[in-house]
This record gives sequence, structure tokens and C-alpha cells, in this order.
Amino acid sequence: MIDINILLVIALILFTTKILAIFTRRINMPQVVGALAAGIILGPAVLGVVEPNEAISVIAEFGVIVLLFSAGMETDFRQLRTSFKSSALIAVLGVSLALGGGFGIALLFGMPTFESFFIGVVIASTSTSITVEALNEMGKLKSKSGTSIMGAAIIDDILTIVILAVVLGMGAGNGGFSIASVGITLLKIALFFAFATLGGFAVKKLFDKMYAVMGQARRLSVFALAYCFLMAYLAELFGLADITGAYLAGIALCNTRCVEYLETKIHELSYILLTPVFLANIGIHASLDGMTGSVLLFTGLLVVMAVLSKVAGCGLGAKMCGYTNSESMQIGIGLIARGEVSIIIASKGISAGLLEPGRYSSVIIIVLVTVLITPLLLKRAYRQKPA
Amino acid sequence: MIDINILLVIALILFTTKILAIFTRRINMPQVVGALAAGIILGPAVLGVVEPNEAISVIAEFGVIVLLFSAGMETDFRQLRTSFKSSALIAVLGVSLALGGGFGIALLFGMPTFESFFIGVVIASTSTSITVEALNEMGKLKSKSGTSIMGAAIIDDILTIVILAVVLGMGAGNGGFSIASVGITLLKIALFFAFATLGGFAVKKLFDKMYAVMGQARRLSVFALAYCFLMAYLAELFGLADITGAYLAGIALCNTRCVEYLETKIHELSYILLTPVFLANIGIHASLDGMTGSVLLFTGLLVVMAVLSKVAGCGLGAKMCGYTNSESMQIGIGLIARGEVSIIIASKGISAGLLEPGRYSSVIIIVLVTVLITPLLLKRAYRQKPA
Repeated sequence: MIDINILLVIALILFTTKILAIFTRRINMPQVVGALAAGIILGPAVLGVVEPNEAISVIAEFGVIVLLFSAGMETDFRQLRTSFKSSALIAVLGVSLALGGGFGIALLFGMPTFESFFIGVVIASTSTSITVEALNEMGKLKSKSGTSIMGAAIIDDILTIVILAVVLGMGAGNGGFSIASVGITLLKIALFFAFATLGGFAVKKLFDKMYAVMGQARRLSVFALAYCFLMAYLAELFGLADITGAYLAGIALCNTRCVEYLETKIHELSYILLTPVFLANIGIHASLDGMTGSVLLFTGLLVVMAVLSKVAGCGLGAKMCGYTNSESMQIGIGLIARGEVSIIIASKGISAGLLEPGRYSSVIIIVLVTVLITPLLLKRAYRQKPA
Repeated sequence: MIDINILLVIALILFTTKILAIFTRRINMPQVVGALAAGIILGPAVLGVVEPNEAISVIAEFGVIVLLFSAGMETDFRQLRTSFKSSALIAVLGVSLALGGGFGIALLFGMPTFESFFIGVVIASTSTSITVEALNEMGKLKSKSGTSIMGAAIIDDILTIVILAVVLGMGAGNGGFSIASVGITLLKIALFFAFATLGGFAVKKLFDKMYAVMGQARRLSVFALAYCFLMAYLAELFGLADITGAYLAGIALCNTRCVEYLETKIHELSYILLTPVFLANIGIHASLDGMTGSVLLFTGLLVVMAVLSKVAGCGLGAKMCGYTNSESMQIGIGLIARGEVSIIIASKGISAGLLEPGRYSSVIIIVLVTVLITPLLLKRAYRQKPA
């Protein structure tokens, strides 16, 4: 028997999310903000009618996985390939600036060197799920800057995972093992990408063949979803984020002849149930436990650094690669949001004894603030575009 | 962090379900059987790669809820009203025969009177979820017999819940309390139906109004789903099954002007993810633990009684109400399947000390066998129809 309260929780999330989405739309704000606010309002931070919950987390995770899968399917593959170099530069500059900035702030607050560096790693990552949903809403996901954001986000994910492996390896204090563990991490990442690429070509051919045989059979969308979950699982198995796997699964299908059909089907699944739960769940995890004045100041400075480092670093990278000013701004802003990767890194750091448990609330706040402001800033950045 | 194995499990369920569904279709068997078989094969009974799991159970429960919600939306309301009396007779005869039969078999095997009666209650219930999916596949859900099956199933649900309340009240041994508890149960059921009816009319009007304002906004389908989950929750709160609430929510919407639009949207959600997980999850719970020869004989006889009692009892009821022979057969067969209600009753009986824990495996087998043969028999029964 399942806990029946979950039924009420889902009903509340769906109602509140959509009602707030209507409201945010009226006042000309992105609907994503409404859904996030729904979670904050329902969760422990305000009303406390919904507590963080395992089952909700599972559905939320499915939500972000399917969201990135859709984003992958909507990718313009040729553009992704041509923008690879610029994406790499954008990612490296953004990650370095955030890492350095976080490190510096933590040192200023008297934290030990190693823990300070870890704080830098926590705020170095990027989460594009909110950006994807916001760009979707504005119809800008396939734009040149949208594709660069997605490309940079993948490289960001890899960079942060590698850095985390290095830091954890060093932190473990076994000099001999650290280099080996970094090597293993790099090897696993390389293996996964090789597998994803080769498998992706095979899967593309398979879907084209199935489509030729069955036509628009709905069964195709079930197979596509199964492939998405498999890749998400494999990514985790190889030490990457599940959403990276899901995104690559989407990219594998982005050139199949049935991609538009698949997108329509998968999109319903996201829209009706999974995405609202995913967005609300972020808000549900908001909490202000253990926030003293000094911690609040520390958190505030980290938030500012988290925002500025990406806007400046990624924006600069984009500018250096020949993007216009407004495109560079869009790219910088599109990479502001932090998400599950920051949270995962923080939890790993805490469980490895490299980070004080009290820092967790700060990380959640950084995630929440960046997630809330990203869609607002993005809307502004894309509105100014034509000039 | 969620357990990443769930991603692999979902991928496996989706793959296997659809591949077996293609296969069962080829050999002219209902696809539902393929999905059930997928669960049995993946589960502990055969390969053991998927264990029963809380998160899967939650998604499976969402699956059966959304399935019954869709069935409700597809109801021909006028037909449901006119067939109410016949549905009641069909339900009462089926429940009585199964109850008496189960009681008799258990007595024959030397079980105490009270426990024997409880065995009768366990096999008295009906689960239409499999029937709904099978009728859906054949496009017969809106047929006259299809509507009677759904009507009888609702009354079945109420009857079994009331009988369970009586038995648990008697079993508790507090003579004074038992009548009170039965009274409270009846009152709660009456209250729930009153609320569902009044609320249903209000909700119908609200959706018609929203549709007039927004048109085919996808947001409507999110509100509809929220309403479905809310009613499922309330049904459980009032002591009924969640699927009864979901079905009534569907009926409330079955006459709105936007019902076809809603159905299409909600159906994607079921088809792509929820229904495969729901069906496979039944198979995953299959197990042959503790099956001695005598228990196997006992279980076998109960299975035969479970099938015959519904075919004969419900079929007779339908015949008495003027249905043709083939329609009566369809109705009898449509009510064979046992499901979550039987499992719930058995668990309640075990936790109240009224049923030996060892009986649980028998109940699971009854559920599995009836669930597997129902779609096969239904296909046959509906094929013979025109004659």
C-alpha cells in the first residue's frame, strides 16, 4: 500500500502551480517562477502542508530527466557541432570565475583553505533545467544562444564532475589514490561519451527503421522514453549526472525522421504531470534553518558571486567567440542557475567530511535564488534582443 | 538523492512491456497480457532483476488512478443512469456467489468459520482496471455491456467495503462497537457519494466555463488531473478505494464540452509511462513462496470459484435484467478480475489477526490468474458477439 497523502500532495502541486502560473503570466513574469513559488508556498518555508518526500522526489527527478530529454530532441545538431569550441570556452571561463570567486569569499570568512576551495566547486556548476523550461516558454531553445547554453552546460557538468573527483581524491588524503581516482573518473567519462555517441548513431538508425515500418505508432514514444531512462541511468553509473544522459539521448534522436512526433508525445507527459512536480519540488526543499546573520551575509555574497561569475565569465567567453553583446548576455544569464549538481556536490562534500553540514542551507538558498532570477533575467535579455 | 536503479527499472519495464505487447499482438492476444508477463519475467518469479519497490508502486498507483479517470471520462452518462438497477443486481449476485463459494471452500479445508468467511470476502471483490484496459484496446468501453461492467464494479467496491467493515467490526469482538462502526462506514460512503455528486456538478460547470474562456488550453488538462488526484485522495479518506474516486472524477467531466480534448491529453500520460508501469507492477509482485501441495489445491479451487462465481452470478444478474446471452457473458467475464481491493482486504485481515499471513500468496495468485485470463476471455466474448 502506498501512502495516500501523496495523492493529495500531487493534487495540491498541480492546482497551485497552474493557478500561480496564470497569475505570473498576468503580471508578465515567466510561468516557471509561478511553479517554483507554488513549491515554496506549499512547503515547510511557508504553509508547511507538503514536506520533502521520497515519492515526490522520484517524480520530480523523472520530470527533470524528461525535460532535458525533450531539450535534447529539440537540438539543432549542426549548430551544436559548430558551436562546440565556443561552448567549451564559455564553460571554462564561467566555471573558473565561479570557482575562484567562491574560494575567495569562503577564505574571507575564515574558512579553512580546503573547505573554501570546496565552496568554490559547489557554486561552479550550472543547471540548465530552469533555463530550458524558460527558453521553451519563450520559444528560444533552438536559437543560436540557446544551443550554446546547452552545449556549455554539458561541458560544465563534465568539468565540475572532474574537479569534484580531484577534490574528493585529494580530500581523502591518500596521495597515491587521488591521481588514480581522477584518472578513473576521466576514463569513465570518456567511455560514457564514446558509448553515447556510438549507441546514439545506432539508436537513430533503429528509430528511423521502426518509423518506416510502424509509422506514427505511439509505441515509438514508449521506446524513446525507455531509451531516455536507460541513458540517464548509465550516465549516473559512469559518474555523470542523469540529466546529461537524458540530454544526450535526446540529441541521438534529434535527427530522426520521427523526432517531431516523439517530441509532441513526450511533451504531454512533461507538461501535465512531471514538470509541475519537478519545479514545485525545488521550492518544497526551501528552508531557512540555521540562518544566522553571518551565515546570511556569507550566503548573500555567494549568491552575488554565483550570478556575476557566470554572467561575466560566460558572457566574456561568448563575446570572445564572436557573439553579439546581447547574445553574450543571454548566454551568461542562461548559465546562472544552479541546481541538482550543486546540491549533489554539497551532499558529497558533507558526507566526505570536507564541508560543514551547516553549509547545506546556504547551498539550497543559492540554488533557489539563482533559479528564481534566471527566468526573470532571461525574459528581459531576450526581449531586448532586436534593439 | 533518489535511488538511481529506479531509472533502469523504468527503462526495463517500458522496453519489455512494449516488446512483449508487440509479440502478444502478433499471436492475437491482448497487449495487456504482454505487459503483465513483462512484470512476471522481470520480477522475482522469473529473472529477479526487478524487486517490488515503493517508488514503482507509487507510479503504478498513479497509473491505475489515471486509467480509471480516463474510463470515467469515456462513460456514457445517460447509459450509466439507465443501467443503474441492472448494475446493482449484477453486483449483488456476483458478490454473494463469490462470498458463499469462498466461504464453502475454506470450510472444506478445515479453516475456522470466521476465517473462512473472511476468505469469502477476499474473493468477493472485483477490479475493473484490467477490464478497462482490455475494453479500451478493443474499443468496447462505451458499449452497453462495458457501461454495465463499470457500474457494477462501483457497486461491488461499495458492497465489499461495507462487508469488510462488518467483518472487521465483528472480528474486533466488541459487540457494541461493531454496529457503530458499520453505521459509520455506511455514513461515510453516503457522504462521499453526496459530495462527489454535488461537487461533480460544480466541477462540470467550472470546466465548461474555463473552456469557454481559455479554449483548448493545455492547462485545462492539468486542472483535470489535479481534480482526479483530489477525488482519489478523498475516496480513500472516506474509506473507499482511490480508483473509485478517480472514476467518479472522470464521470463528473464526461459531459463537459472539453472532455474529448482532456481525454486525448490524459491518455498520452497513461500510455507512455503510467499504464505500462501499473501492469508490470502486478507481475512483479508474483511469487510462489510458501506454496505446498495442499495450499496449491486450496488456491486452485479458490481461483475456479472466483471465476465461476462472477461469470455465473453476474451473468445471471445481467440475463435477469434483459441482456442478451452474449452480453451477459461479456459482463460476467468483465467482472472476473480481482485486484488491489482483494489484496487490501487480505492485508487488513492479516493485520487484524483474522487471516493467517500464509494466505497472502494465495490471494496474489488469485489476482494474477484472474487478471491474466480476463483479457483473454473478454477478447473471445466480444469476438463472438455479432454471431
